[in-house]
Amino acid sequence: MKTYTDYLWMNTKQEKEIVNITEQVREVVKASGVKEGLVLVNAMHITSSVFINDEEPGLKQDFLAWLEELAPERPDYKHHRTGETNGDAHLKRTIMGREVVVAITKGELDFGPWEQIFYGEFDGQRRKRVLVKVIGE
Amino acid sequence: MKTYTDYLWMNTKQEKEIVNITEQVREVVKASGVKEGLVLVNAMHITSSVFINDEEPGLKQDFLAWLEELAPERPDYKHHRTGETNGDAHLKRTIMGREVVVAITKGELDFGPWEQIFYGEFDGQRRKRVLVKVIGE
Amino acid sequence: MKTYTDYLWMNTKQEKEIVNITEQVREVVKASGVKEGLVLVNAMHITSSVFINDEEPGLKQDFLAWLEELAPERPDYKHHRTGETNGDAHLKRTIMGREVVVAITKGELDFGPWEQIFYGEFDGQRRKRVLVKVIGE
Repeated sequence: MKTYTDYLWMNTKQEKEIVNITEQVREVVKASGVKEGLVLVNAMHITSSVFINDEEPGLKQDFLAWLEELAPERPDYKHHRTGETNGDAHLKRTIMGREVVVAITKGELDFGPWEQIFYGEFDGQRRKRVLVKVIGE
Repeated sequence: MKTYTDYLWMNTKQEKEIVNITEQVREVVKASGVKEGLVLVNAMHITSSVFINDEEPGLKQDFLAWLEELAPERPDYKHHRTGETNGDAHLKRTIMGREVVVAITKGELDFGPWEQIFYGEFDGQRRKRVLVKVIGE
Repeated sequence: MKTYTDYLWMNTKQEKEIVNITEQVREVVKASGVKEGLVLVNAMHITSSVFINDEEPGLKQDFLAWLEELAPERPDYKHHRTGETNGDAHLKRTIMGREVVVAITKGELDFGPWEQIFYGEFDGQRRKRVLVKVIGE
């Protein structure tokens, strides 16, 4: 059995941004040498997400607009009594999810035709990490 | 260490439909021979879901009605500029989740009393796949 | 390859409550002896959640208030035709998620600076279980 761990550093230009990280994950899987197993990819910060959907610019705009409806920026979150201003980012990340687990089959990400891995940042413009952990053989 | 991979083909009668796939997953786990480990079950398409909840017909109707409130069918999603009409399905799948990871203990899905695995289809009436990956010993 | 299984018993004082279970999960990982691998932590009941976010009391209040907006207590869920009154709890748990998968690196939960594991109860005041499954070496 093999395991392999790596970390991707993210630093988005926008406060809220969706970034395709599929190729970076693919490189970690290749470096791991694992042919059959699982790869966990997760945000290590609680105001950002890792999720799987489609690489389509309009859809990324739809996601951000929709999250603003479901979990709007508001001054009155109780979390803001700590001095923070990012209450909405904790909720947006909850909708989008912290992590994905992807099967590795014959050395490749075992993906459907449109699956791509994204980093969703909701309180960005600073350095954050994504963990990639491979387990298998 | 053992790994085992299988795919379930889905083709729902309705455009939006929730289908119980617990027995099919159980058969894959049995075929794998894994007694202790994990099984990943994920939709391979980005407008459908795999999730765990209760087998109760009223609840399935509640899920579909609630998703229509949170992520309604609308003509004006930016994703539709590509010619697609399924923007809502990408959002509904995000609420319900892409995947579940289930423990295998003593050769069985290690489930609580009501846990059942469902495929949630939000843009159906065509062939799609669910991946089942077993890892363990 | 090693696997290790344990169960945490929960019994919240409130009907809806968020409980930090990070230390209990950490103890299971230590007991497993696994140095490199994955740990799955999931609610075994379909009206409760396991999720990762920040240990901050205001944020916990924000989560519960927000869930009441997105998935309110209502008398008219179709699920209630069975005699149940917890339709909202099934939906709230869906937003928060059933499970987390966490990397184990050098014998520790491989966490970012603020990550903590929570049990989210939405139909409590009774005994329920959380499954912790460790796999690795």
